[in-house]
Amino acid sequence: MVKLGNLKLTVIGGGSSYTPELMEGIINNQDVLKVSEVWLADVEEGKEKLSIIADLSRRMVKKKKCSIKIFETFDRKEAIKDADYIITQIRVGQLAMRRNDECISIKHGVIGQETTGAGGFMKALRTIPVLLDICRDIEELAPNAWLLNFTNPAGIITEAILKYSQVKVIGLCNNPINFYKKFANSYNVAIDDVSIHFTGINHLIWITDLYIKGKSRIDDILTGKSDSYEAKNIPAFGWDPEFLQSLGAVPCGYHKYYYQTDHILEKQLEQYYRNETRADNVQEIEKELFEVYQKPEIQEKPDILEQRGGAYYSEAAINLILSLHRNSKDVHTLNVRNNGTIKCLPDDVSIEVNCVVESHQITPLQVGDVPAQIRGLLQNVKAYEELTVEAAVYGDKGLAHQALTLHPLVPSAERAKNILDDMLPINKEFLPQFN
Amino acid sequence: MVKLGNLKLTVIGGGSSYTPELMEGIINNQDVLKVSEVWLADVEEGKEKLSIIADLSRRMVKKKKCSIKIFETFDRKEAIKDADYIITQIRVGQLAMRRNDECISIKHGVIGQETTGAGGFMKALRTIPVLLDICRDIEELAPNAWLLNFTNPAGIITEAILKYSQVKVIGLCNNPINFYKKFANSYNVAIDDVSIHFTGINHLIWITDLYIKGKSRIDDILTGKSDSYEAKNIPAFGWDPEFLQSLGAVPCGYHKYYYQTDHILEKQLEQYYRNETRADNVQEIEKELFEVYQKPEIQEKPDILEQRGGAYYSEAAINLILSLHRNSKDVHTLNVRNNGTIKCLPDDVSIEVNCVVESHQITPLQVGDVPAQIRGLLQNVKAYEELTVEAAVYGDKGLAHQALTLHPLVPSAERAKNILDDMLPINKEFLPQFN
Amino acid sequence: MVKLGNLKLTVIGGGSSYTPELMEGIINNQDVLKVSEVWLADVEEGKEKLSIIADLSRRMVKKKKCSIKIFETFDRKEAIKDADYIITQIRVGQLAMRRNDECISIKHGVIGQETTGAGGFMKALRTIPVLLDICRDIEELAPNAWLLNFTNPAGIITEAILKYSQVKVIGLCNNPINFYKKFANSYNVAIDDVSIHFTGINHLIWITDLYIKGKSRIDDILTGKSDSYEAKNIPAFGWDPEFLQSLGAVPCGYHKYYYQTDHILEKQLEQYYRNETRADNVQEIEKELFEVYQKPEIQEKPDILEQRGGAYYSEAAINLILSLHRNSKDVHTLNVRNNGTIKCLPDDVSIEVNCVVESHQITPLQVGDVPAQIRGLLQNVKAYEELTVEAAVYGDKGLAHQALTLHPLVPSAERAKNILDDMLPINKEFLPQFN
Amino acid sequence: MVKLGNLKLTVIGGGSSYTPELMEGIINNQDVLKVSEVWLADVEEGKEKLSIIADLSRRMVKKKKCSIKIFETFDRKEAIKDADYIITQIRVGQLAMRRNDECISIKHGVIGQETTGAGGFMKALRTIPVLLDICRDIEELAPNAWLLNFTNPAGIITEAILKYSQVKVIGLCNNPINFYKKFANSYNVAIDDVSIHFTGINHLIWITDLYIKGKSRIDDILTGKSDSYEAKNIPAFGWDPEFLQSLGAVPCGYHKYYYQTDHILEKQLEQYYRNETRADNVQEIEKELFEVYQKPEIQEKPDILEQRGGAYYSEAAINLILSLHRNSKDVHTLNVRNNGTIKCLPDDVSIEVNCVVESHQITPLQVGDVPAQIRGLLQNVKAYEELTVEAAVYGDKGLAHQALTLHPLVPSAERAKNILDDMLPINKEFLPQFN
Repeated sequence: MVKLGNLKLTVIGGGSSYTPELMEGIINNQDVLKVSEVWLADVEEGKEKLSIIADLSRRMVKKKKCSIKIFETFDRKEAIKDADYIITQIRVGQLAMRRNDECISIKHGVIGQETTGAGGFMKALRTIPVLLDICRDIEELAPNAWLLNFTNPAGIITEAILKYSQVKVIGLCNNPINFYKKFANSYNVAIDDVSIHFTGINHLIWITDLYIKGKSRIDDILTGKSDSYEAKNIPAFGWDPEFLQSLGAVPCGYHKYYYQTDHILEKQLEQYYRNETRADNVQEIEKELFEVYQKPEIQEKPDILEQRGGAYYSEAAINLILSLHRNSKDVHTLNVRNNGTIKCLPDDVSIEVNCVVESHQITPLQVGDVPAQIRGLLQNVKAYEELTVEAAVYGDKGLAHQALTLHPLVPSAERAKNILDDMLPINKEFLPQFN
Repeated sequence: MVKLGNLKLTVIGGGSSYTPELMEGIINNQDVLKVSEVWLADVEEGKEKLSIIADLSRRMVKKKKCSIKIFETFDRKEAIKDADYIITQIRVGQLAMRRNDECISIKHGVIGQETTGAGGFMKALRTIPVLLDICRDIEELAPNAWLLNFTNPAGIITEAILKYSQVKVIGLCNNPINFYKKFANSYNVAIDDVSIHFTGINHLIWITDLYIKGKSRIDDILTGKSDSYEAKNIPAFGWDPEFLQSLGAVPCGYHKYYYQTDHILEKQLEQYYRNETRADNVQEIEKELFEVYQKPEIQEKPDILEQRGGAYYSEAAINLILSLHRNSKDVHTLNVRNNGTIKCLPDDVSIEVNCVVESHQITPLQVGDVPAQIRGLLQNVKAYEELTVEAAVYGDKGLAHQALTLHPLVPSAERAKNILDDMLPINKEFLPQFN
Repeated sequence: MVKLGNLKLTVIGGGSSYTPELMEGIINNQDVLKVSEVWLADVEEGKEKLSIIADLSRRMVKKKKCSIKIFETFDRKEAIKDADYIITQIRVGQLAMRRNDECISIKHGVIGQETTGAGGFMKALRTIPVLLDICRDIEELAPNAWLLNFTNPAGIITEAILKYSQVKVIGLCNNPINFYKKFANSYNVAIDDVSIHFTGINHLIWITDLYIKGKSRIDDILTGKSDSYEAKNIPAFGWDPEFLQSLGAVPCGYHKYYYQTDHILEKQLEQYYRNETRADNVQEIEKELFEVYQKPEIQEKPDILEQRGGAYYSEAAINLILSLHRNSKDVHTLNVRNNGTIKCLPDDVSIEVNCVVESHQITPLQVGDVPAQIRGLLQNVKAYEELTVEAAVYGDKGLAHQALTLHPLVPSAERAKNILDDMLPINKEFLPQFN
Repeated sequence: MVKLGNLKLTVIGGGSSYTPELMEGIINNQDVLKVSEVWLADVEEGKEKLSIIADLSRRMVKKKKCSIKIFETFDRKEAIKDADYIITQIRVGQLAMRRNDECISIKHGVIGQETTGAGGFMKALRTIPVLLDICRDIEELAPNAWLLNFTNPAGIITEAILKYSQVKVIGLCNNPINFYKKFANSYNVAIDDVSIHFTGINHLIWITDLYIKGKSRIDDILTGKSDSYEAKNIPAFGWDPEFLQSLGAVPCGYHKYYYQTDHILEKQLEQYYRNETRADNVQEIEKELFEVYQKPEIQEKPDILEQRGGAYYSEAAINLILSLHRNSKDVHTLNVRNNGTIKCLPDDVSIEVNCVVESHQITPLQVGDVPAQIRGLLQNVKAYEELTVEAAVYGDKGLAHQALTLHPLVPSAERAKNILDDMLPINKEFLPQFN
């Protein structure tokens, strides 16, 4: 039901460095949202960060003369109770475990990225049980709340929640909003004049058509005539226009792991031998960020946050909350239950497609059939994701082995086994379901 | 592509008594639509009516100081050439043939309604070839135009166009907009606060859920606690709340032909014996209407038009054109290609569901599975419709017999044959494909 | 697992007048089957009949010098325990209730046949709970047994068992075997030279192709050039060859209820007014049969049994048991779970199609798509059957009303309600689930 | 139609070293088959081989006192005209091109096998146009003939024929018959006592259940308790029982390319560096075989043929022809159109599953759903096959690139491009469709 004002908004993983951006969004839309309480919940290990973030949030609220009350807590249930919107942005095992994920993968010669490949797989095993625990609390204490899940790998996590809880969950990613922003900018039009046909699953979405003010512009991108695509999202290597044309669709940034595997692997191996990982890099940025955050003179989201990556994450979240709140029937690109939308995928899996947002439900726009070029990879990765969810929920090592073997970036069952044999013991404390 | 101003809007069957309402809608939205030309095309037999309508339209335009030019023509191609929007509202064989449809049906003891049963079946056989001819012209002369088809039976006609032409067609009915109006009125809220889940096909749509400001209200209707449903749409007989509750959905008005067959049949037989048909009734109203239309002092849509039925037809059309024109991603309930939206129906049939409207395309919102209560009747009627399209396109009497036999309101193959044997000869001049 | 000899075969409803035919089949195939025990179980009300049948069976065994032991019992569990094959041929409420089913239906002007229409519907409501009880016993006492269900309406009963028990059930009908016999006879070839493509559900199967020695002969039947079809199976009225050709398939005998409704209804009304029902007719035949059965000089299946109808029922059963027993991968036409075989029907419903029989499983041969002529009626009747199963299992009067309303032979929701209101009270003692 | 005697049997690629085995099968079943003519057709380049094979065939026929006439011809049309069964076993480009396929693949670090990976891909591009040309002749000159396609990659070739011709084609492989033989042998039972549930596509079939005399034995294989599996079919590396158990199915030999990629790749690289390929190996065996074949004293299939591989190929073919000829409704494992049999694959693709064989048609047994472990790989490889067919038929280099990129054994789009850039020019004379 549409609720007018007095919203309670809860952030689980409130001590995250992203929170200030979210706070900014809430504050800037306070005339519509009328949030009365923001609860920042985190685990005790994150006490210091949580405290810094909560204090900064309070300064931000005060600066803008808002009446929002900021709460910080280690008691998740208290934060969840009667919340209207709950955002989850947690990292089970922190950056230390992410570092392990990346290093073990690459040590075995396979790409280990936070969301894709063996890295994302391991992160899912650690994270799903925690998220399902949170969902148990939501079912009990805030059954009508919308859960906005940002936690990566967002597609897999959202699928686990869709399959194993009653919570009204929506999976969110900043990939789609970035495409909208980019194309609006390239063609110098308003966001509303951009229409993008997305097909796929989280971090594996293809753009099968692009309309600017009602005119198809996809060929600009496929033929490389436009610079609107390669500029920022895709790193150094670029895409071969001939490849894009026979693909008939624009891949997203994460596709490079599948289509440009050789180069990415080489680059990751280099970094590994130099003992540099993305986890290390992020750790440094985070350190720097929190140093800035705690300065009393900082009363707004500092510009430095933009370097952290995750551009427009909060904007995506705030836009979604606004549509839910206003029951506005807007179109957003979200992770939801398939239910026949993409016909070549099972009904009960998560997909990332355009959806109409109403306050009581999210309805995907029909996609239908998918060309073979896209279908084969999409179905393979989705089957991997389904097995990962089952392995994580039931703590089934055999299914974990099957999942990893099926992953297109893992070249053999043996390699999958070796990675698993290294990863499971080191993650033991985060995998009670496997013991 | 979104076109700014200078729109050419063409009405085929421009001499229809509904046209003044449409004109009113165009004039009232002229600041957004910026229509430069309205072409009213009709057949020579309708010369007098066309002339009356065109003159009235000109008076209406002048009264409102609009700069729209009104053209009347018997040359369809001239009217279609380079049109941006084309509306078809024709009646092949006029009311005389409608009278035959109704009388022959009821003479054989089956319901003969203009859109449902043997009546709608016969109308489809006459109309599909004409509409497909029109589509040939549109393909050639205005390939980018949107065709808004009002011509009944709108679901069957739209399906024929979807299957046998390249034209960008949308089937339109006033059934959905009437539900929106009714519920908005009952709950005293704005139309935008009403969200209705429609499942079905033209003139056979069920409301499977209803939300008012984000809160489900379907139980109000199913339990009869609310008067919001039975009041106007459904005639005398009403619905049994127990039946509605086990159905789990709100039927539309045309469902009474299927669910209340006995009563409707009895009533139609009575009228038949009194030599009164709906066709006769409409003929009288039409006569009266045109008498009013030609009075020079009439410079606006006269109130008497409301008695004609078809409430909000033009509003539905104008709203749709506005959304197409503005590329607004609004949700409308339209007749479109299924493509997996309702999983229990074939991909290539027409369905009537909620859709997102963009200037370049209409995308249905995913419906998924349908409960058995709805499914059985829906699938049966749809198979009848598919066969009717084939019979009409190929002039296949055998398939015509199969179609009619399959119709739930026709009790046996023999009865179907007898009706057909009476109907085909009398319609001979309108059925070149059967000769 | 294939078991060699010492078979225990159980007949629930052993006192049925059909049992002697079954006994004959067992005895004639004893060299392959090596049955050691036949258990005839029945309810105490049927004591006299059971005793007559058991005695006759013993005389038949003795005459042929077989070593099969015949047991009669009212203790169903004793009969089921460790059985290898269990046959159910029961009639809950006996012929008295069948008489009610037929009379109440026709009184309301709708066809009331034992398996089709309101008659079959009511029989299903009475029978499903009893069959599911039997299945509970089989799950406990003979989990590896094959259950051959003859009990009508066989398709609906089998579907209930498939959905609500773990028993290995096969639904059997004599319709398919009669077609094989008839065509073999007409073309003067061996049964093995006849190949029939069946599509449909129990008592609603269409022959979509017919091959005699590898050559398609369906057109002989569709064009009426052959007399092989109409002779016996279809009563007086016959089929119009033009209708058959546009149907593109040969209907089964029960199709006349749907395609020739007017005639059947007229005939049933006549009988009703003469106070003659099929139930009365059967009652008389049964009386006569049992008088013969109890004569000590009768030591074989008496010829008079052939008048009872149900020709080749036992042959179908014995053939199936032989194939199961020998693990012979033969093709039989059986009622099994759809599982995608007929693509336009749900996965979990029962269908009647060609299947390969192995001792451990029955696998349907893929059917795929079905033409619209067949599809519409098939889907409608199947949805009615699904609702009937749910109504019977959950004792849900609302669903019972929806089921009956959806039935193509019931013209309106009101008529359905009136029939139900007459039927439910009179069946009260057999419908504990509704109380 | 079942034809009695006077069969004309045509072998396209009649000069193949496999032909003597086929001849042996024909001769041994001559009492049933009653073949009057065997036509061995080949290209002029194979003149010498063809002559040797034809002469040997004549000696074999004479030795057994058969009345079969042996024809040799370079005129394909003459051979096809009025044939009853046509067998295709051709190798476009001979072993020289196979050598290129293998070497180019491995040079780029990917597995290049004759049927799997880049090797099979290239072979398909060369072979499909030739097979479709043959089909044009069959459509014209022998439209009722059954085409038994042995030509590899048999699944892809069969799919191309199913999609782009009207010929009654069946794809055949010796993989399934080898499993039957092996299990019959291991369990010491007759072949008829073995029942294997196959799911998949050619050279990628999983055994999802195994029954010996009606008892499930799959666990014997999955747990490694039985030696019935690993002994011969799977090379040195063996399978990890834990992997098999979580897979829940027995892979076929070709699965090692996907599941044991590292080892196979290493082994192929070794051979490549030693300048030894499978093509070289086969070339030597062939040379030796033909030396034996031409000895006048050889009047039967020489034992040495067994070393050539392809065990039981001819037996599979002869068994199939026997079932077709006798209209016997036996179950064979064949490559046929999916049509919904495996629900997660498109309707129009080829699959390899159990089928019932009648003289007029082949009908697959319903498979239904497939577990995720199998599904992901199966769907990915099938999408690659679909694209390969399109690329081969339309000579579309872009689709060829997409096909190869999608193949699980090709790690990146760039690698696919490099392989293609090396392969296409060297195959130029065999790829008219690409020029």
